[in-house]
Amino acid sequence: MPTSVPPVTLDDVRDAAARLKGIVHRTPVLRSRTLDALAGAEVLLKCENFQRVGAFKFRGAYHAAGRLTPGQLARGIAAYSSGNHAQAVALAARELGTTAVIVMPQDAPPSKREATAGYGAEIVTYDRYTGDRVALAEALAAERGLALIPPYEHPDVIAGQGTAALELIEETGPLDALIAPVGGGGLIAGSATAAKGLHPGTRVIGVEPEAGDDTRRSLEAGRRVAVPVPRTIADGQALTTPGELTFSLNRRLLDGIVLVGDDEIRDAMRFAFERLKIVLEPSGATPLAALLTGRAGPLPGRVGVILSGGNIDAGRFARLCGAGS
Amino acid sequence: MPTSVPPVTLDDVRDAAARLKGIVHRTPVLRSRTLDALAGAEVLLKCENFQRVGAFKFRGAYHAAGRLTPGQLARGIAAYSSGNHAQAVALAARELGTTAVIVMPQDAPPSKREATAGYGAEIVTYDRYTGDRVALAEALAAERGLALIPPYEHPDVIAGQGTAALELIEETGPLDALIAPVGGGGLIAGSATAAKGLHPGTRVIGVEPEAGDDTRRSLEAGRRVAVPVPRTIADGQALTTPGELTFSLNRRLLDGIVLVGDDEIRDAMRFAFERLKIVLEPSGATPLAALLTGRAGPLPGRVGVILSGGNIDAGRFARLCGAGS
Repeated sequence: MPTSVPPVTLDDVRDAAARLKGIVHRTPVLRSRTLDALAGAEVLLKCENFQRVGAFKFRGAYHAAGRLTPGQLARGIAAYSSGNHAQAVALAARELGTTAVIVMPQDAPPSKREATAGYGAEIVTYDRYTGDRVALAEALAAERGLALIPPYEHPDVIAGQGTAALELIEETGPLDALIAPVGGGGLIAGSATAAKGLHPGTRVIGVEPEAGDDTRRSLEAGRRVAVPVPRTIADGQALTTPGELTFSLNRRLLDGIVLVGDDEIRDAMRFAFERLKIVLEPSGATPLAALLTGRAGPLPGRVGVILSGGNIDAGRFARLCGAGS
Repeated sequence: MPTSVPPVTLDDVRDAAARLKGIVHRTPVLRSRTLDALAGAEVLLKCENFQRVGAFKFRGAYHAAGRLTPGQLARGIAAYSSGNHAQAVALAARELGTTAVIVMPQDAPPSKREATAGYGAEIVTYDRYTGDRVALAEALAAERGLALIPPYEHPDVIAGQGTAALELIEETGPLDALIAPVGGGGLIAGSATAAKGLHPGTRVIGVEPEAGDDTRRSLEAGRRVAVPVPRTIADGQALTTPGELTFSLNRRLLDGIVLVGDDEIRDAMRFAFERLKIVLEPSGATPLAALLTGRAGPLPGRVGVILSGGNIDAGRFARLCGAGS
């Protein structure tokens, strides 16, 4: 963890975009007349569920790995994650011609484990109830000389994630507001850096699940606070405390945090499915839930929304969203 | 039904595209590395599930209605359909500033009925087991002076549907093959007219559900034959016999028909959900099933695929695709 905070600037996000050009998908921006009418705004949906590995995470992982020295890269990279960051680092390693070791819990969903292994990564498992994945990954990295790519707490990761917002704004023009999910805080920190760097008047609103409101509480307290391990379907946002670096950026850049409940997230996933014809995982649907519930408040004219990922299998979707519709 | 067959030409499709410009969505063309590897070809997915009303049907309906005389249009339009054509005609009427009467079965899914009524159409119901919807719609149209917009058996409808393929080819360049679903035959007749008109060497392959192989049987017999009412999840293709006009075009233009079973369609819907992150209704997924099963045969280099629609609610999707994944 850095002790002095390195800033992440609009230029860093621009540099990241240059490095990622032709590597990441330039994901489409979807519009929906129905959604505009419900939200009372012009809503521009940046569909990172169509990104490689199915989520924005590939942007930050590839950018951070690509900034390593040739010597570091040759020794290989490592990460700890049971989710989208695991697949992102595994694919980044393959694309950069190196190897990856991913520390995953023993009980990670088989589909995520298979996808990660499918990109050629070595998987090291640990017991989620007794093990410390960060310590384990750090020990592994030290022992084997690997470069550890953290899921959010790194300026290169944050700058990479910010390219999603940069692309959106380049394509659609200035935004009055930008809404994105908050997990560890890397996506929104990078996105806010891009959005406010380009147009300081853009309001940036983060969305957390009700049970995992660590960033909102931390912003209110003016310091990083921890919440109990969140029970929420939004697995990408089930963190207990914000990152030090991401929080230092977000307390300066965010205009507010909106909370959404699991039932509201389910409704948003169903809306995405039935009306937008796209697949969102729970965390990816939280900004849409903030819009559909009106929690994001009266909105100004043009609102960018980052739909962060779509990694959910049909069985889990059926269990979460199939009944009652 | 026309007694002498009016031809539909590439120029008709081009005229339709000019009329539809700014009215229909120019739907995105998606690519998938995974699908390319599985299919052994460069696959270009034209996503008509993102079209207005959620299916290609709006193209033909709007084009046919838009070609009416001002006097005809002012008296209103009519259609019979329990599916996507109903919503398409209802929306076309609203956009053109006129009224629509849609003949639907009493037991049509409430969501489809609501969507159709939501566009402002009047709904007239009939009993599917005892009523004749064509006779009812024709009587209604005659009585009220309405112009009947048939779901496929009309040159303006066919030319409108062909604009999906025209857009795809304009965006991506010449295709070695084009694959599209076959129901009444309007989509593939229009698409083949566009594709072969531009590049006569393009192979055009239709896809039918196994239980509803009326066009394949008719092509083999060299004349229109009827099959029993198909039992298939692909409700958009549950027809018993091809149209006279569509068959006259398709017997000249199609290079083959591939059949897919309901389980294969389910697998393709699940693939679209989990890998492509898009929602397809069963009929919309049949061309993908033809690719994934290898039924479409060894494919040449560049293959265009029309994913025709995505109108399925989350509950039905869960019942069809949720188990076992």
